[in-house]
Amino acid sequence: MIEVGIVMGSNSDWEVMQHAARVLKEFSVAFETRVVSAHRTPDLLFHYAETARERGLSAIIAGAGGAAHLPGMLAAKTTIPVLGVPVPSRYLRGEDSLLSIVQMPKGIPVATFAIGEAGAANAALFALAMLAVSRPELADALADFRRRQEEAVLAMTLPEVE
Amino acid sequence: MIEVGIVMGSNSDWEVMQHAARVLKEFSVAFETRVVSAHRTPDLLFHYAETARERGLSAIIAGAGGAAHLPGMLAAKTTIPVLGVPVPSRYLRGEDSLLSIVQMPKGIPVATFAIGEAGAANAALFALAMLAVSRPELADALADFRRRQEEAVLAMTLPEVE
Amino acid sequence: MIEVGIVMGSNSDWEVMQHAARVLKEFSVAFETRVVSAHRTPDLLFHYAETARERGLSAIIAGAGGAAHLPGMLAAKTTIPVLGVPVPSRYLRGEDSLLSIVQMPKGIPVATFAIGEAGAANAALFALAMLAVSRPELADALADFRRRQEEAVLAMTLPEVE
Amino acid sequence: MIEVGIVMGSNSDWEVMQHAARVLKEFSVAFETRVVSAHRTPDLLFHYAETARERGLSAIIAGAGGAAHLPGMLAAKTTIPVLGVPVPSRYLRGEDSLLSIVQMPKGIPVATFAIGEAGAANAALFALAMLAVSRPELADALADFRRRQEEAVLAMTLPEVE
Amino acid sequence: MIEVGIVMGSNSDWEVMQHAARVLKEFSVAFETRVVSAHRTPDLLFHYAETARERGLSAIIAGAGGAAHLPGMLAAKTTIPVLGVPVPSRYLRGEDSLLSIVQMPKGIPVATFAIGEAGAANAALFALAMLAVSRPELADALADFRRRQEEAVLAMTLPEVE
Amino acid sequence: MIEVGIVMGSNSDWEVMQHAARVLKEFSVAFETRVVSAHRTPDLLFHYAETARERGLSAIIAGAGGAAHLPGMLAAKTTIPVLGVPVPSRYLRGEDSLLSIVQMPKGIPVATFAIGEAGAANAALFALAMLAVSRPELADALADFRRRQEEAVLAMTLPEVE
Amino acid sequence: MIEVGIVMGSNSDWEVMQHAARVLKEFSVAFETRVVSAHRTPDLLFHYAETARERGLSAIIAGAGGAAHLPGMLAAKTTIPVLGVPVPSRYLRGEDSLLSIVQMPKGIPVATFAIGEAGAANAALFALAMLAVSRPELADALADFRRRQEEAVLAMTLPEVE
Amino acid sequence: MIEVGIVMGSNSDWEVMQHAARVLKEFSVAFETRVVSAHRTPDLLFHYAETARERGLSAIIAGAGGAAHLPGMLAAKTTIPVLGVPVPSRYLRGEDSLLSIVQMPKGIPVATFAIGEAGAANAALFALAMLAVSRPELADALADFRRRQEEAVLAMTLPEVE
Repeated sequence: MIEVGIVMGSNSDWEVMQHAARVLKEFSVAFETRVVSAHRTPDLLFHYAETARERGLSAIIAGAGGAAHLPGMLAAKTTIPVLGVPVPSRYLRGEDSLLSIVQMPKGIPVATFAIGEAGAANAALFALAMLAVSRPELADALADFRRRQEEAVLAMTLPEVE
Repeated sequence: MIEVGIVMGSNSDWEVMQHAARVLKEFSVAFETRVVSAHRTPDLLFHYAETARERGLSAIIAGAGGAAHLPGMLAAKTTIPVLGVPVPSRYLRGEDSLLSIVQMPKGIPVATFAIGEAGAANAALFALAMLAVSRPELADALADFRRRQEEAVLAMTLPEVE
Repeated sequence: MIEVGIVMGSNSDWEVMQHAARVLKEFSVAFETRVVSAHRTPDLLFHYAETARERGLSAIIAGAGGAAHLPGMLAAKTTIPVLGVPVPSRYLRGEDSLLSIVQMPKGIPVATFAIGEAGAANAALFALAMLAVSRPELADALADFRRRQEEAVLAMTLPEVE
Repeated sequence: MIEVGIVMGSNSDWEVMQHAARVLKEFSVAFETRVVSAHRTPDLLFHYAETARERGLSAIIAGAGGAAHLPGMLAAKTTIPVLGVPVPSRYLRGEDSLLSIVQMPKGIPVATFAIGEAGAANAALFALAMLAVSRPELADALADFRRRQEEAVLAMTLPEVE
Repeated sequence: MIEVGIVMGSNSDWEVMQHAARVLKEFSVAFETRVVSAHRTPDLLFHYAETARERGLSAIIAGAGGAAHLPGMLAAKTTIPVLGVPVPSRYLRGEDSLLSIVQMPKGIPVATFAIGEAGAANAALFALAMLAVSRPELADALADFRRRQEEAVLAMTLPEVE
Repeated sequence: MIEVGIVMGSNSDWEVMQHAARVLKEFSVAFETRVVSAHRTPDLLFHYAETARERGLSAIIAGAGGAAHLPGMLAAKTTIPVLGVPVPSRYLRGEDSLLSIVQMPKGIPVATFAIGEAGAANAALFALAMLAVSRPELADALADFRRRQEEAVLAMTLPEVE
Repeated sequence: MIEVGIVMGSNSDWEVMQHAARVLKEFSVAFETRVVSAHRTPDLLFHYAETARERGLSAIIAGAGGAAHLPGMLAAKTTIPVLGVPVPSRYLRGEDSLLSIVQMPKGIPVATFAIGEAGAANAALFALAMLAVSRPELADALADFRRRQEEAVLAMTLPEVE
Repeated sequence: MIEVGIVMGSNSDWEVMQHAARVLKEFSVAFETRVVSAHRTPDLLFHYAETARERGLSAIIAGAGGAAHLPGMLAAKTTIPVLGVPVPSRYLRGEDSLLSIVQMPKGIPVATFAIGEAGAANAALFALAMLAVSRPELADALADFRRRQEEAVLAMTLPEVE
């Protein structure tokens, strides 16, 4: 059963959002990917959010750029956790996306992550951490991921200064 | 018949948005004022936008602060002109509101005005200018408003330096 | 008869502003394009604005970058709706253009759109929306445009994660 | 059993962070509140994070201002979900806090919320949403909260323009 | 004969711009003060700029806030040196005013000074420095002003730490 | 006799600052160009500023990037008009340069121009405008420059939309 | 013998800079406090920096606001470590001060600390840390300070939520 | 014996941080380079900081980007002077890194330098300046470095304007 939905405002956001998909795939958590535009397909957005819980989703990861309304409007229509990823915009490099996603008013939360690829990957890791609260094998897998990540850093070497 | 809808995300936005209402009243253009929250009353937002044209509205003035999704989501659901007013936010003083409103993606326009009171008043003046294109008496009233405004500036005096 | 004027401070702004022209052409609304510089041709600016109404223009779309005074000064000289497009500037990427256009004082409105191409296209769509208030066939065309736009998003597919 | 830990860098952050505590109390979810400073009590920070899972915490809400390292360092030491709240700073009003919390590198996620009170309350609501994924009665309570919130907005009235 | 014109967009700018007037008065350079609004009195602006040289002005000091078009448009209509003072705006504290004044395109210069009182005083000191190039007694007065200013700093004392 | 000094913190600033030199050369005003670094040649800076008046300079155009102290420190050591040009910096694109130059304290003015090439050219045009106050032939040359500039804009054409 | 010099551009900076003095006094490290303005007393600045080493200073803590040139120019004239404290400015709250101090070019370092009181105190603590490298008793005193600071945080209590 | 530790969050930071290493090598001060990630190797970070003094380090230069917690957390765990270098981030070009490093709370200082290469080189020069306080030969070497740097600037030539 699909546990996490990854949605984005346009297929041009895939370059960033695929990093969320890759993480979930690596951990063998079932997910779906969809293009859902807050402004161009508002009805689909509402439908997607309204049916999220009954369809069994545990989290929605939503990436959007500029006046990035997608995560906030999904959150307005479901109480399933919504994780927002600011996609870098052409001229303001994601500063607009970040503020549009994170500055939600009291009452409707969106969990926001870093601008771009790092944020997409981290949203997926956070979704895994949420699921891992009640699933020990996922907690172990996450701990293992952290261990390997630590080892990768420990194994890094730096060149000599010529 | 009501020609312009003035909507805002909370009654706390009234302090700013009343400046739009005052302008419309001064010009005797019929308007309605409504609290419509993108995040807390998303269904009302959709309903308001979907019925705007058939109800005869010529423009919607929408004020919102922070992750200000109201103007953009109204615009997503109607082709009636939507005019967005960035309401000053508590910590970022409306910079977030401005970017969230103005940085709309290609395809769904929101006409954006200045942060705060000036923006609210100007959104109303712009709505009048739109109506005035096909209504000479409103064009005359606007021209008269400009004239009085010019005279008010010309009548300003400055104190002597002590 | 020409209904919309598209003006810009330099022919180097054409790369951005042509997106406004393309939209109007697609909807078969007659427009003219002109280079009008607030700072280098101020008299032309005044003349253009002063004659806009009598020439039958229903809206002026003005693109400018940096200390972008063109939209605001046009608005100061006409009550025809002025739509401002912040053209990206070389070093500040349009943040200066945006603030110079949107932060107009109470009394003289400029409807402002997003920085760059999206803003230019949306200014044109907004001009169409204004005209569509009293022209049902244009309202239908806009609704049709929205529908096709929605379908284009619905048809988008995302690749598999390898 | 305590399910959520609310930590903050100083007791001066309480004015903001109490809004997280109030929400959890309203929903009868057990929580603890602690002062944990990343810079002044780094060992306590590590200890708190390292024992979080075994102590049964399902989420940690961490508020911090300025060079706000608390949420990110907690996240570095536990795979329990960490929710970061940017506390407004004296001179930069939380812009520094926001960037320090949200711009985490790939591999260690922190879910970030709005600057100040709204962010604190929303972090708590998000923690509830996480728990509600597997607890229907909490999902119902959240749905009920949303309903009451919607009704509160629908009941708002606006004054007449004098 | 009046040598310097001090203009501002509104009499509410006087609190800032009086600091320019005070400096000129202190140096006994004749000046005039005028309210000239780029947006509300555009014709007066053009007239003021066009007649500046023949009226014998050596410099125009122009203060404006927000989308501060006054200095740039004066500069577009005269080759007399124009000195711009960014007046602090309500929500963006003069950041918008600064960018709107300083980011002029190649070809039309505006000499820009600091936001607020310091900028107003410095614009006047700069005007004096310009005049002093060909007037030795003014150069002496400026040198004397600098000397007194230096002495005032040298005479400053600091309290003991209790 | 040399009338204007063009100084810059490094020869790498020449790409920007040559635009000042080109303008002065075009108007046949004698100038010198020098590398003077506030931080690496502070004594030269003081010497340059201290001898500026006696050497007959009428203005100093100073370009600097980052913590751009050159214009302000020159102004601290001479009452000759100092014109500052913010050179774009590598990471902050000149925002730091602009603030470091323009935000001078009350008492020591620096006339600041736009970031980069436009600012360099405009500083030179402004220096010419200063000189032109008492030199009619330069005023005429400037007026002629403006006329040609206006004509160049009027001659600009825009392509058809395909 | 005086080990640390605390200098600031004006006695109005004392409110911030006294926090540096308090820290040094608490640790019984001898210091002097002086008003030295980069722009109004440039010769004193040079003299102060040039004589710093021979007078036995081990560090200079310099506070300045706006176009804060004091720390950088001191650093240009001495190889004694210079520690810069951005004093909050009136309109930009120290963002200008911070960038003007920290963005020094390669070759002339200024160690920069946080905006305002925290930065002033931390500059003093950092000066102590520098001295403590070769003075064990100061290292012990610093370690003791850290311990007491840690205990103060550990002793903090938070109120109950009513 | 190693006197200075150069640490960075990833080997991808080497491009920037090598500039610190080059400077130290040029002055024949012994240093080590290590990858230490605050978020991915927090235990190593603590161990590194805790053993710094006993290992004889006189300073730690730490480079980090984004939510750059490395310098601040090192400073939290040692009283050895910590020098922070903001590494440019992908989308925000180091503005986030700078604020995360410099805005430390009262009690735990981090000396911060410019974004990127200049900051890395200057951190090393500052470390040398610290050591030079008690080592005359290093003070001489630094003075000599400054002299050569001054001469290099004095020897710079600028091209003619064609």
